Amino acid sequence: MVSTLRPGDTIGILGGGQLGRMIAQAASRMGLKCHIYCPDEISPAFEVSATKTIAAYDDEQALTEFAENVSVVTYEFENVPGETARILEQLVPVRPGPHALKVSQDRLIEKTFLSQEAATQVAPFIKVDTQAELETALAELGGQGVLKTRRFGYDGKGQIMIRTPEDAENAMEQLNNQPAILEGIVPFEKEISVIVARSLDGTVKCYDPSDNYHKNQILKTSTVPADIPEGTAQQAVDMATRIATALGYIGVMGVELFVVKTDGNTELVVNEIAPRVHNSGHWTEDACPVSQFEQHVRAIAGWPLGSPARGYNVIMENLIGDDVNTWASTLLEPNAHLTLYGKGQAREGRKMGHVNRLSPLC
Amino acid sequence: MVSTLRPGDTIGILGGGQLGRMIAQAASRMGLKCHIYCPDEISPAFEVSATKTIAAYDDEQALTEFAENVSVVTYEFENVPGETARILEQLVPVRPGPHALKVSQDRLIEKTFLSQEAATQVAPFIKVDTQAELETALAELGGQGVLKTRRFGYDGKGQIMIRTPEDAENAMEQLNNQPAILEGIVPFEKEISVIVARSLDGTVKCYDPSDNYHKNQILKTSTVPADIPEGTAQQAVDMATRIATALGYIGVMGVELFVVKTDGNTELVVNEIAPRVHNSGHWTEDACPVSQFEQHVRAIAGWPLGSPARGYNVIMENLIGDDVNTWASTLLEPNAHLTLYGKGQAREGRKMGHVNRLSPLC
Repeated sequence: MVSTLRPGDTIGILGGGQLGRMIAQAASRMGLKCHIYCPDEISPAFEVSATKTIAAYDDEQALTEFAENVSVVTYEFENVPGETARILEQLVPVRPGPHALKVSQDRLIEKTFLSQEAATQVAPFIKVDTQAELETALAELGGQGVLKTRRFGYDGKGQIMIRTPEDAENAMEQLNNQPAILEGIVPFEKEISVIVARSLDGTVKCYDPSDNYHKNQILKTSTVPADIPEGTAQQAVDMATRIATALGYIGVMGVELFVVKTDGNTELVVNEIAPRVHNSGHWTEDACPVSQFEQHVRAIAGWPLGSPARGYNVIMENLIGDDVNTWASTLLEPNAHLTLYGKGQAREGRKMGHVNRLSPLC
Repeated sequence: MVSTLRPGDTIGILGGGQLGRMIAQAASRMGLKCHIYCPDEISPAFEVSATKTIAAYDDEQALTEFAENVSVVTYEFENVPGETARILEQLVPVRPGPHALKVSQDRLIEKTFLSQEAATQVAPFIKVDTQAELETALAELGGQGVLKTRRFGYDGKGQIMIRTPEDAENAMEQLNNQPAILEGIVPFEKEISVIVARSLDGTVKCYDPSDNYHKNQILKTSTVPADIPEGTAQQAVDMATRIATALGYIGVMGVELFVVKTDGNTELVVNEIAPRVHNSGHWTEDACPVSQFEQHVRAIAGWPLGSPARGYNVIMENLIGDDVNTWASTLLEPNAHLTLYGKGQAREGRKMGHVNRLSPLC
């Protein structure tokens, strides 16, 4: 196994969605090849790479052949099965490492890591495996909270908001009695995120925080700079840096934080981390010379990180479902820059592309 | 035949080199697919696209199948055989059109077009088919000139500089008696170029002119803004606009001009045009939100052109042959942005990649 790639080497990417596609596009700009591994025959990332494997994530033979033909493996989604990662890491470096996967795949492990090892503030949380444990936990948190499955939650899925005793009835049954946690409700003003990168030699670089606005629990816009005090922005960057460092992370990670105002003070609470390039970092593709995708490639290739400096202020808008039908009018906007993911059908809730609207740095 | 593409449609690209590769990368960002047609089994553009045809440019069956599977055809090199273009254009729009190919493939037709139809200044030129005609032409131009084959010249190939009677001896034989022209020597101060784009509806947009510096007759650097008076820059843009309009051009074109100082006046003389994305426009990829590659794709797709505005000042440096070995140190420069073409061997004179070094707009 080599730890550092050279131009012409091949990056293996688990997952063929838009994130894998954009990683592959950035890799090719720097003369690296990509090999996409995805079970879905029609995958956006297949279109931008000469090499692909269509196979299940538990297909040991396909994984072995894949690993033998690439110099490093990365992934575009955090729910890579542990067994998949274990098979691969015996043959090839897997970056970000399996530790990052383990931590981010389980909300209980994640919150414990964030509060203890990374010394960052999180919402109060209690392990809940049964309806009885939920009742006890609710009593402890003042009768309210958000019940979340420990695994496989995203875009608001696998979550139940509990504000009244009625909300709690049968709540565990609604989640199919999956292992869960109850989190205290954070009275947040808004959500921001930091895209942080850490290289093989431990250097950490952060992009400026973004203000994130969600619609139907899916990210709709990210605005940079975020409308927060300078000290808060620095605090967010410091927290993201501590998290990446404590994880021994290699690559780009998204860190979502709640901005909470209490008694005139602004505080930050870490919501969750995503061990991959992140939707709230898509603005970097047009507003920065080095995008989050290039930064991720540099990190997992064992190369030095680039500058995360911005050249513009920017608002990123996700094109979800039918939003994509605005593509033609967007092309007419002088300061808008359109990215489409090459997906066929504009199903409801499906991320089809995004637009970055640029403006001068004040 | 449709004249306007939709996301998900496929662009056919003749030529699999770095220009085709960068066109394909830009197309994929906007949700368009690409199909690369190239006779060379190992081609840089193959790596960034799912679909390719490996066949000769005179393989009528392969060309027909290619044309039937794409919505528009473009090319990365001006020496597309006329017969190839004729076969394709019967089945699918070819952009820029065959007229642009015909004009740019033959220096005699090109210079005649530039001086007469586009009303731009060019060096004096005389058609030369024999050594005897060369002697007559030399007498007319004061005994000096540049003898150039009418076809297939690039990077200084197919040219002989004639300053003395000895230089002229056997000159036509050295060029294998190919049809040629003798051009008057232009006492130019330097070369600049303009990257101009024209859309299906006739809209023209130009990027800022660049100062171009050549080494061993191959472009080494392009610097933007060019160090020329504002009036000269505007004149260059006006000339490029006239040329694109007179050609009825669709797509991006490179227009090379000589800057000549006579009696304190600055004059521009058109050197040549290239009906394709151009090496001296590679700076746009990092210094502009809309690169020349995206602009070309927009134009040939029948989409509106993007803004050619710059966000940075920039120096583009070509990495030629062994220059590419600087890749690792370039990655350490905070304001440098590296592009590599994925070519294997760094042969002498081979374009391996380029670096854009950005600085703030004054």
